[in-house]
Amino acid sequence: MDYSRMCPKYEHAAELLGKKWTGLIIRVLLDGPKRFKEIKFQIPDMSDRILTERMKELEDLEVIVRNVYPEKPVRIEYELTEKGLALEPVISSIQTWGEKWM
Amino acid sequence: MDYSRMCPKYEHAAELLGKKWTGLIIRVLLDGPKRFKEIKFQIPDMSDRILTERMKELEDLEVIVRNVYPEKPVRIEYELTEKGLALEPVISSIQTWGEKWM
Repeated sequence: MDYSRMCPKYEHAAELLGKKWTGLIIRVLLDGPKRFKEIKFQIPDMSDRILTERMKELEDLEVIVRNVYPEKPVRIEYELTEKGLALEPVISSIQTWGEKWM
Repeated sequence: MDYSRMCPKYEHAAELLGKKWTGLIIRVLLDGPKRFKEIKFQIPDMSDRILTERMKELEDLEVIVRNVYPEKPVRIEYELTEKGLALEPVISSIQTWGEKWM
C-alpha cells in the first residue's frame, strides 16, 4: 500500500472528528434538524462561543447546512447534509472502540 | 440517548486518531511488527522527533508495545497490541469517509 497517498484525506477527516465537541454535535444532529438552543440543551457543558465556532466549521465543510425559515420570529435550524449523515458509522466505530479500550 | 456520557471516551479516542501521523503509523504497523527505521521508511515526510513522540504516546496508551530482542546488535521492534489492532476498522472507516467526502 502507498501510505503517503492515504495521508491528507485521512488526516483531514480525523482532525475534524478529533476536535472537541464535534463528534457530539454530529451525534445530536443525527436525531434530526435542531435549533442552536436545542443543540446547546443537549450539550450543556459546551459554551455558546465554541458551539458557534464548531457550527461555522461544519457549515464551511458542508457537513451541516443552516436552514432559515422566514417565519415570525424567524426560525433557524441546523441539519446534517449527506456528507454529514455519512459520518454516522465513523463516529459509531470511534465510540465503540473508545468505550471498550479507553 | 445521554450525550454527556458519550463524551469523554469518544473525545479521547477521536483526539488520539486526530493527531497528525498517528493513523498512518498504526496503518503501517497493521502490516506487522516494525523497527523504527522501517516505519520511518514508509512515512518519509515525518521527522524522527515526531515519530519518537508519537511512538511514546502510543506506548503510554498501550496501543503499541516495544519489544527488545537481546541480539547483537540489539533489535527493537514496535508491535500493535490487541487494543491497537482493534483500531483497524476505526481507521478504515475514517479513511473511507475521507476519501469519499474530503
